[in-house]
Order: sequence, then C-alpha cells, then structure tokens
Amino acid sequence: MGITAALLGTTGYTGMVLLRLLEGHPEVERILPGSSSKTGEPVSSVDPGFGTSVKCGSHSFLSQDQILAEKPDVVFSCLPHLASAAMCLPFYKKSVIIDLSADFRIPDPDVFYKAYGEQPPVKEFLSGSVYGLVEWHRETIASSDLIAVPGCYPTATLLPLLPAAKHLGSGGNIIVNALSGVSGAGKKAKEMLIFAERSENTCAYSPGRTHRHTPEIQYYLDAHTKETENYTLYFTPHLVPLKRGMEVTTVLTVKDGVKNSDITSVFDEYYGTSPFVRINKAHIPETRETRGSNTCSISWYLDGNQLFLFSCIDNLVKGASGQAVQNMNIRFGFDETLGLPAYGEV
Amino acid sequence: MGITAALLGTTGYTGMVLLRLLEGHPEVERILPGSSSKTGEPVSSVDPGFGTSVKCGSHSFLSQDQILAEKPDVVFSCLPHLASAAMCLPFYKKSVIIDLSADFRIPDPDVFYKAYGEQPPVKEFLSGSVYGLVEWHRETIASSDLIAVPGCYPTATLLPLLPAAKHLGSGGNIIVNALSGVSGAGKKAKEMLIFAERSENTCAYSPGRTHRHTPEIQYYLDAHTKETENYTLYFTPHLVPLKRGMEVTTVLTVKDGVKNSDITSVFDEYYGTSPFVRINKAHIPETRETRGSNTCSISWYLDGNQLFLFSCIDNLVKGASGQAVQNMNIRFGFDETLGLPAYGEV
Amino acid sequence: MGITAALLGTTGYTGMVLLRLLEGHPEVERILPGSSSKTGEPVSSVDPGFGTSVKCGSHSFLSQDQILAEKPDVVFSCLPHLASAAMCLPFYKKSVIIDLSADFRIPDPDVFYKAYGEQPPVKEFLSGSVYGLVEWHRETIASSDLIAVPGCYPTATLLPLLPAAKHLGSGGNIIVNALSGVSGAGKKAKEMLIFAERSENTCAYSPGRTHRHTPEIQYYLDAHTKETENYTLYFTPHLVPLKRGMEVTTVLTVKDGVKNSDITSVFDEYYGTSPFVRINKAHIPETRETRGSNTCSISWYLDGNQLFLFSCIDNLVKGASGQAVQNMNIRFGFDETLGLPAYGEV
Amino acid sequence: MGITAALLGTTGYTGMVLLRLLEGHPEVERILPGSSSKTGEPVSSVDPGFGTSVKCGSHSFLSQDQILAEKPDVVFSCLPHLASAAMCLPFYKKSVIIDLSADFRIPDPDVFYKAYGEQPPVKEFLSGSVYGLVEWHRETIASSDLIAVPGCYPTATLLPLLPAAKHLGSGGNIIVNALSGVSGAGKKAKEMLIFAERSENTCAYSPGRTHRHTPEIQYYLDAHTKETENYTLYFTPHLVPLKRGMEVTTVLTVKDGVKNSDITSVFDEYYGTSPFVRINKAHIPETRETRGSNTCSISWYLDGNQLFLFSCIDNLVKGASGQAVQNMNIRFGFDETLGLPAYGEV
Repeated sequence: MGITAALLGTTGYTGMVLLRLLEGHPEVERILPGSSSKTGEPVSSVDPGFGTSVKCGSHSFLSQDQILAEKPDVVFSCLPHLASAAMCLPFYKKSVIIDLSADFRIPDPDVFYKAYGEQPPVKEFLSGSVYGLVEWHRETIASSDLIAVPGCYPTATLLPLLPAAKHLGSGGNIIVNALSGVSGAGKKAKEMLIFAERSENTCAYSPGRTHRHTPEIQYYLDAHTKETENYTLYFTPHLVPLKRGMEVTTVLTVKDGVKNSDITSVFDEYYGTSPFVRINKAHIPETRETRGSNTCSISWYLDGNQLFLFSCIDNLVKGASGQAVQNMNIRFGFDETLGLPAYGEV
Repeated sequence: MGITAALLGTTGYTGMVLLRLLEGHPEVERILPGSSSKTGEPVSSVDPGFGTSVKCGSHSFLSQDQILAEKPDVVFSCLPHLASAAMCLPFYKKSVIIDLSADFRIPDPDVFYKAYGEQPPVKEFLSGSVYGLVEWHRETIASSDLIAVPGCYPTATLLPLLPAAKHLGSGGNIIVNALSGVSGAGKKAKEMLIFAERSENTCAYSPGRTHRHTPEIQYYLDAHTKETENYTLYFTPHLVPLKRGMEVTTVLTVKDGVKNSDITSVFDEYYGTSPFVRINKAHIPETRETRGSNTCSISWYLDGNQLFLFSCIDNLVKGASGQAVQNMNIRFGFDETLGLPAYGEV
Repeated sequence: MGITAALLGTTGYTGMVLLRLLEGHPEVERILPGSSSKTGEPVSSVDPGFGTSVKCGSHSFLSQDQILAEKPDVVFSCLPHLASAAMCLPFYKKSVIIDLSADFRIPDPDVFYKAYGEQPPVKEFLSGSVYGLVEWHRETIASSDLIAVPGCYPTATLLPLLPAAKHLGSGGNIIVNALSGVSGAGKKAKEMLIFAERSENTCAYSPGRTHRHTPEIQYYLDAHTKETENYTLYFTPHLVPLKRGMEVTTVLTVKDGVKNSDITSVFDEYYGTSPFVRINKAHIPETRETRGSNTCSISWYLDGNQLFLFSCIDNLVKGASGQAVQNMNIRFGFDETLGLPAYGEV
Repeated sequence: MGITAALLGTTGYTGMVLLRLLEGHPEVERILPGSSSKTGEPVSSVDPGFGTSVKCGSHSFLSQDQILAEKPDVVFSCLPHLASAAMCLPFYKKSVIIDLSADFRIPDPDVFYKAYGEQPPVKEFLSGSVYGLVEWHRETIASSDLIAVPGCYPTATLLPLLPAAKHLGSGGNIIVNALSGVSGAGKKAKEMLIFAERSENTCAYSPGRTHRHTPEIQYYLDAHTKETENYTLYFTPHLVPLKRGMEVTTVLTVKDGVKNSDITSVFDEYYGTSPFVRINKAHIPETRETRGSNTCSISWYLDGNQLFLFSCIDNLVKGASGQAVQNMNIRFGFDETLGLPAYGEV
C-alpha cells in the first residue's frame, strides 16, 4: 500500500517531470494531477508523451477541491512563486507540502522582498518551512511538513560552494557564472523564448546581484558560513540554446596553503555518502551527464589561491522535480534514491 | 539618386530581413520602416542587431500616415494575411506594392476561401496582381504595380516541380514532403513555438491538402500544366529544429522513357540563365547552402518512372524577403541580382 | 537471482543506452560491458554520465574472452554490421544472442548483398535467426537463440505500415519520407557529423531505394503482404538537427471505400494489447513524446484513397536498445514492459 | 582594377567565410583559393553553398606554387598554428601576409612556448609582425607586411577589457568566463565535436590559465596596462551548442568612485568612431546580434566596485575572417568598412 501524491500546477515542465518520476516510484500508489486552468481535461491533451498512466486514475486534471477531498499524503506545488503559497495553505498540517516555488524558501522577509518585490505570502508559515537542499538539511527535512525545494541556480551553485566556502575560502567576493537551458524559464508563451529567438543565440542576463536567485544563494551561503567568513556573491546567469541542463562556474579565493588534497577531503567528508553528488577528480562535467538524472556532478580546478568550481545538473530534475522527490523520500523514510534516475544522458 | 522603399509591419522576421537587404541595396536611397504597434519607437529596440542604418533616417518606426506622406517608390508589406491588403490599399497606383502576405496571391476567390476561410480582401484588386514567382513571371512582374510574393513552401515546391510536371510528368498524384525551420511560423509568442517545445523535437503537421499553402501550390501547378496533364498534389509539412531553412522532397511519376538527360535539358532550358536557381547534378542540396542567400538549390533522383525532386531555400530570403527584393529589381529595371546575397552559409 | 547480460561493443550510443536499461532492469543481476578497443579501461572514461553502476562489477570494459568465461545468459551485440556476426559466433547455443547489427536481419543473401555489398557473414546461422520486430514475431522470438533487432528506420516504418498494407492497401507504390536525429549515424568521428555541419542544417540523402534499410523494409513488407498485394517502397531519409528521434511519414493508396473506422479497427486488432505502440486518433505525434521511451507513437490521415501514416520513435530506444531489451523480455519470459521506460520527454 | 587576394588553407570555416567576404569586396578583383590537400579539386566539392564565384577563376583549389606564381597582393593564411608560418614564409616581402593562425601573434617566445608547447616558428619574423587588433593598432597595421589576426577569444575579451583595465581598473584578478559556438573548434573530424555529443550539452573546459588563448590575452592586456596596474587574468571558456557566436563576461575591480558616466566616457573615447564596436548602454548584447557581422557588441554593469563587461562577436567574422579583411582594408588604404557586413542576424 503506497502513498497518494497530489500535484498542483501539473501542466508546466516541472509538473510533467514530476508525473513521470512519481509514476515510476515504487512507494507511490496514486497520483492526483491538479490544474485549475485545465480541470477535467485529459492529461494527454497537455502531455501526450506521458502515455497511459496506471496511477493517475481518471487521467484528467483535478481541481484543488477534488484534491483536498482525497486527502493526499503529500502535495507538490509546481505553481509560480507568489501564487503557490495560497494554494498550498488548505493542505497545511493535513498533507506534507513540498513546494517547488520560491514562496517558502527565504525565512527573512526583507531578503524575500529584495528578490521578489513583494512581502512573502502566508508569512506566518515561513518559520515552519525547511529549505529542501537535501544534502545539507536531511535531518530537519525528515520531520518537516512544509518543504521549500531550492531553485535550480541555488542548487547547482550551493552544492559545490558550501563546503568550499565554509572550510577553504578566505571570504571576499565570489564570482559565479551560470549557463541555463531554456526550460528553466518555464512553459510560457513569451516572444523572447521562441525557438527562432533562442537557437543560434546566447547571452548573459540579470547580472551581478539582480537575478531573483541571487538573494536565495547569498542567504544560504551566509547561513552556513557566516561564523567563519564573510562573502559577497556576484551571480551572472546566461541563457544557452539547450532544452535541459545547467552548468555553474564559481570562483572563490581560498586560504593560503590550500591544496588539492584538502579539497578532496572536504568534498569527501560532505558528499562521500550522498548518492546524488558525484565528485569528479580529473574530469570537468558536462550537462548531458546529468540530463534526466537527479545527480549534481562537480569538479574543481585550483590555480594558486583561486579555486574554480564546476557543477552540472538537470534544471528540471535535481534543480526541481527530482530534488522534490528526494525530499519526499527523506520525509517519508523511504530510501533516498527511490524512483530517482541514477544516470544521465549518453 | 536611388529610390525610397517603405515597409509595413517591419518588426517581424521578414521585415527585419528586408531592412538588411534594402540597407545593402545600391539603388535604394531611403528606407521608411513602418509599424503601427511600434510607431515612434527606435528600430534598435526591436532589432538591436540591425545597428546604425544610414538609410533609415530617424531610426524610428513610422505610422502608415507618415509613410504615405513620403510617397515612397515601393511599399513592401510584411503584415499578416487578411490584414495586409487593407493597409496596402492607400498606396495603390501611387507606389509599387510588393505584398509578402497571401492576400493577393490567389486570383480565384474560391481557392482563396478554401485556404483562408474568408473571401480574399480587397477583391477588386486581385485581377491586377501578379504572382511574383520571378523565374516564371518575369515579364508580367516588370509592368505590375501589385506583386504578391509567393509563400515559402510554394516557392520551394514550385521551382523544381513546374518544369518537371509540365514536360516530364504523366499526371496523377504528386507527393510532397517539406521540412521547415521554425522562423517560418513568424515571431509570435505562442507556447508551441518556444525553444523547449521545438528543440530536440520534430513532427509532421497539416497533412494532405490541409495546409494553407497547398491550394496556392495546386493553383499555380494547374495554371502551368493543365493543358497537358492533371495532377493532384498532396503536401505534408514538417517542423524541424532549425531557425532558418526549408527542404522539399517531391515525388511524381514521369512518362515512360524519361531519362536523366531529359531532366537536365528541361532544367537547363528553364533555369540556365536564372541567377538564383542552382541545379546540382550529383549532389543533394542541404539547407545551409542556401541560408542567408536568395538561391533555390535543386537536385533530383530518378528511379524507374518515379522522379524525386529536392529543393532547398532560406524561408526568410528566397521564401520571402529576398524574393520580394528580386521582384523589385525586375519591376524597377535593376539588375536581377542587385543587393541579393549570392552565397549561403559555410 | 537474475540473469547475466553481456554487451559487445558497449562504447557507442546503443551500447551506452543498453547499459542504462539493463542497470534498471529488475531481472538483470550482472552486466558484462565488453569492448575490444577499450578492454581494461573504466566505463566512466567513455561514459561519465553512467555513474556508479551496481551491476557492472569491476566497472571496466571486458574482452570477448573475459565475457565468454562468464557464460552470460544473454549477449547483446552493439557492433557494426559485417563485424558483429563473427564476434557473436562463439556465443552461439551457449548464450541467447541479441544482435543489434544488420548481420542476421535478412535471411535472403541476395537481399543482404543488395543492401550491404557483401554476402551476409556467418551465413549458416541466418536460417536460425528471428527478426525481432516484437509486435509481429512474439512467438518465434520466445523460442529463438539468435534474434536480429530491426534497424531504426525499418521499425518506425513497418509498425504503422504492415497492418495498413496487409489489410487496407491496394498495392502499388508506397512513398516513405523519414526524418532522423543525428545519433542514428553512431558515435563516429566523421566531418559530416560534427555540430557545425549539422546544426542549422537539414537535407535528404540516399533517396528512392538506395538507403541500406530500404531492402530490409521491402523484405518484411513483402513477407507479410505478398499473398495479397504487391508493393514497391520508395524511401527517402532526411537528416535533421536533433540528437535522438525519428519521424516517418508514409503514403500508400488504399482500396476504394476504406474509411477511418476501418483503419481504427485494423490498428486496434494488431496493437490493442501492445504496450509500446500508441495509436493517436486526433493527434499527429511528435518525436519528443517518444524520446527516451520504448514507444512507437502512430497516427494517420486519410484523404480520399491516399492514406498518410505518421510514426515516431526514439531511434536509440525503440529503434535499437529498447527493442533489444523488449526482445530479451519476451525470450526469457519476463513481462514485456520490464525495465523499459513507459513515457517520453516533457 | 582591384587587388588579387590569395588564401592558404581555404577548406576550413575561416577560409570559407573569407571566400564570401572577398567575393563581395569591391576592391578585390581576383581570389586565389589555395589548398594543398585539395589542389585541383573544384571549390564546390568542399563548399557547395559558395556557388558560382566570379572572382575565383578556375573555381579549383590551387597549390602554394600556383599561388606564388600569381604574385598576389595579399595572402591570407587560414592554416593551423605551427603549420601556418612555414607556408607564409615564401610570400614574405612579396605579398602582404595576413595570418589567421597564432604563429605570429606573440612576439615573446616564452609566452608563445607557454601557450603552444613549442618555440614560435620562423622566429626571425616575429619582430616584424603586428597584432591585428584593429581598434588598437590601426597605425602600425597600416604599414605592416605581416599581420597576425587575433584569436576569437582574445578579440572578444580585449575589446571591452583594454579601455576598462587601462583607465578604470585597480589591478588584481580579472575573472573571464567565455561561451563559444562549436565552429570555433574548426572543421575537424573529432568525436567530441559531433552533433550528438554537443547538442543538448554544455561544459566548461581548459579553466584558469590553461587555455591557449589565455597567454595571448594576458600578453596584450599587460602591453596596454602595465604602466598603470598589474592584472592577473583567469579565463574559463565554455562550449555551448551554437554554430557561430561568442559571448564573454568579464569581471574586474575598478577604482573607488568610478561611475557609469566614467565608463561611458572611456568607451566613447576609444570606440566612438570605430565602425565595428557597438556600445550598448541599456541592453546586454546577444550573440545573434553579431552573427554574420564584423561587429563586437559591448555592454557593462557596475555593482559597487565590481565592473561586469559583456561582449559578443561572431567567432568566424570579427573573431577571424572579418577582422582579417578589416586589417586588409586598413593596410591597403581602403575604407575600413568595405566588404564587411554591418548588421547581425534577425
């Protein structure tokens, strides 16, 4: 007898990836695919590649009320930030809520405001939320009823950076350059996202500290390092013509005398037993190695006291829906790897 | 002293390509870039890659009234079908009109209705229009004040097909399969056009005789062959993940005894002196050979009495804006090749 | 206690996809990854995205001798045609052989010669081989020790075509146009395959009956229809800029009076219980719906007596490694769907 | 009566782009397309999209001896580094040599050795060469007989960086992240360059100071700034799935009090009259704006004392063949913009 998992906002890319992961998850018995704009329409009308689900019941999208009536064990929200929290509210303390939006990620309202230009919605719950960066918060996740799944850029940036900044870095500026596939912008009818605009084209955007994910990254960087060092993180994302995939190149200054063996030790200590962090010693990762998988693939290069960190993820899996399932696994006491792809693209 | 050329609907891809071709055209002195939705805004706000035009005057988009006041020698309309004709109307008999939309392409209202679901707009002018398939209508174009530039699929299909169907074919079914780059769908904010939907993806659409361009192709096929043979053309377009480019594969049945040398002769006769039709004898063309150029590159393969025709164009140049300029050259008595790129992509 | 599966020629795309499918297959306990050119090297040196396999033992490529010594239950050969048969030979009658090359596909040596310019290798085994088009040969596959997995083009073409040609078609010419992703050409250092040659580019190639897969398709078309009708199949493949995916558009002439409901009936009869054939009634499939899955997604369009068939597969899964595993499932009495992805890409 | 231009190593991408630029150049009368591996073969066999050249004479590739006999006014070498210098040697002091390889770029043999692992070939000429970064060396180029065209990464990096580092920067580390289209790696049959490896994939490579272009950049950065500040440049290139295009994001620390208006002034001073440097004040450039053009499009973002510079070029035009023609224009006293595209892609 498995659990019942509900989705809010199933029709976007993260919802559609989540459907697939839950369909293949051995501990999930029923899936309730929610969509307020498509209630009653068949799932295949939006997602013909999903095929014949055995767990989706009527194969039609459900309203929030229909989902509430089913009392799901877990609710995943794939709704946009500033819209998600209100839709999650009715499930609070009834179901475990795993929110893929930004609404519960940042406990400090001022930091949230800086990123999103509004006060965090449903502020009173913020204190109860846990930031679902699994490799760093396994214990609190295990007992939380409100999990905020990190953004894709923060996931790919923080996983290599946190151990390095905490133990090796000497404070100061951290320069992050990130490359993202276009699915990171969602399934939206925007002119700047159409194929003829994005293929054979690449650009930087939202540089310095202007991207919404920068305050989120700085917040958790501070949370884990402020006792030892002060860092200022500059983050420049770039849009590259691939569908799925994210690469992050980070440069920080390390303490005098830091050697490659020190870096190996720190990564081994933090990630030696983490099934979804792959540390490469003599190979800079490529995004396709992680495409479709929940893996974050990491490498580094040390030149004097400048440490370069490289990390790749699939923005829709480890950067969103896969990490959400990984959180579910931890929260429900399942094996952390259950239902999560172990390998990337050929 | 060169001519003044105006554009209506400059902000889409065909308008932007036309701007570049006219900027480089030695007989064009002034360009009037029109846009009703962006009047007064700088051209660079929509098209930063166009750079500093020396022919565009104020570098801002003009209204239709502003353009009328300038009495341009030629007006190119890049507006959508069913919207274009009415905007062209005020220029009739004052300027040469070269319309890239479908509005004046099909003189038979029933055929137009079949394709577009409405009566042709400004029907009274239809009889005065010329179908600007240059290689077949040079003489009438030279004296026309209303030129309808063929669609991209009709251009790529008719150029190899007309000589073959007229002289070699034995009537019956013609099976056309076409592959188009995504810019053919225009610069429109549609979900099905976004990069994450179209990259790593291909599909057929509007098969048989359901695509809007099929009646246009059949109409001109009939016009040039009906005295000798009857053909029924089936046309299946496919959307492929490239920005610019169109490939058409056509199969027709030829008369008994047709040999490769007959095909060579027919193509030589029709296109031997045409600067923008390239006949390849031992090489099937690739789209990139025509990317950015006004060339239609053609080849064939004969197996028994089945003749396979292959043709490639750049849908935005020979399939739209380049062919429009080629028409202007003919109409104004300029050299046919003036201002038109002679070579494709490396 | 699961079975032991060996791979010959693991380092190409089909081998790497097969590794992933077998790693996730619940009835496979051990994987023996063979490579004569890379014997002894770690699998991760060629395929870093495969990660930490739990079934691959030493994680290094094995020689043929090492594999022979392990007496695997099943041997998959991912070697090139004309090289594969000889390498499979030592396993004959010791292991079940599932060969992804063309070497055992065509029992008629003359047809093989027409396609490959040589006599079929190890001709004496040809009569013992079964053509692993699962949906048509389930029973013989179940008891065969030598299974020849169909090519990607034949799979995508024959699945929609066989029922239609057998029951609805009236003989004559069949026109097939196919679009293939570039991985279909293998992982080979060829100039014509490099990114800068293939991106923003598309073309037809090997038209008519000149592609190697055409005799294979014609052979099995004849095998299943020759009692009722005679067909001549013309096949024109096109190379399109996607990594994985194949779309086939087929046109055949059907008997007078054939209606849509007849087509529905025929497809229901043949594929109603086939887990990997999806019949779409009002939706032309896109390749991404099948990307990563073992599904062949089919639709059709009837215009008079011209029947258009559309089919999409992932050339590396249903067109190669997935179909190989499907054959293994049938041969070993496992559930046909075991270890095979049920859904395509979002 | 125009000049005669010869090419060595015409069959790669830079050679093919150069053919097109010279064909359209009003002061070039004859083109001599050289290739030692393809001598006597038609140009169209390698480059079918080039079409019917009116300047290439026999339309066949010529040997070095055939070219020598024609006494060209200018010789462009598109040969690989370490192979180019020896082939240029026989033309020295007979023709103007414009070398697109690295062989004459770095006058300091130690710096060359660090980058290429060998002593610079034909060392005695090094002192006579000029680094053809036109916007910085116009005067010396005008009188030089041996011009070394900068690499693509150095061009895109140095153009925005030199004025900023010279006048605004306060020394220290400069962090450069660059994104390059795959054509930058040349037209080579390498497995890691094939479409199926590079599409849907991106990665960093050769980080820190390990890429061959880093010593070249550092050398010219020092040459122009060492009197005022000391900089150490770290350069991390990334391979992104586009055919043509390069984006560079550079971060340097500026002096206290530097304001946006200072940056505007510096760029205006250096590039106000440069036809191929476009300074964007409120728009971060995209690569497609420069695709096919000789433009370097630049923007910046200032956050405290961290200055972010963004620059885009077409790696094959401004990063290679276009810049080579721009050098020819300067050297022969032609207008700097002659024959060079003024606008990028739509």
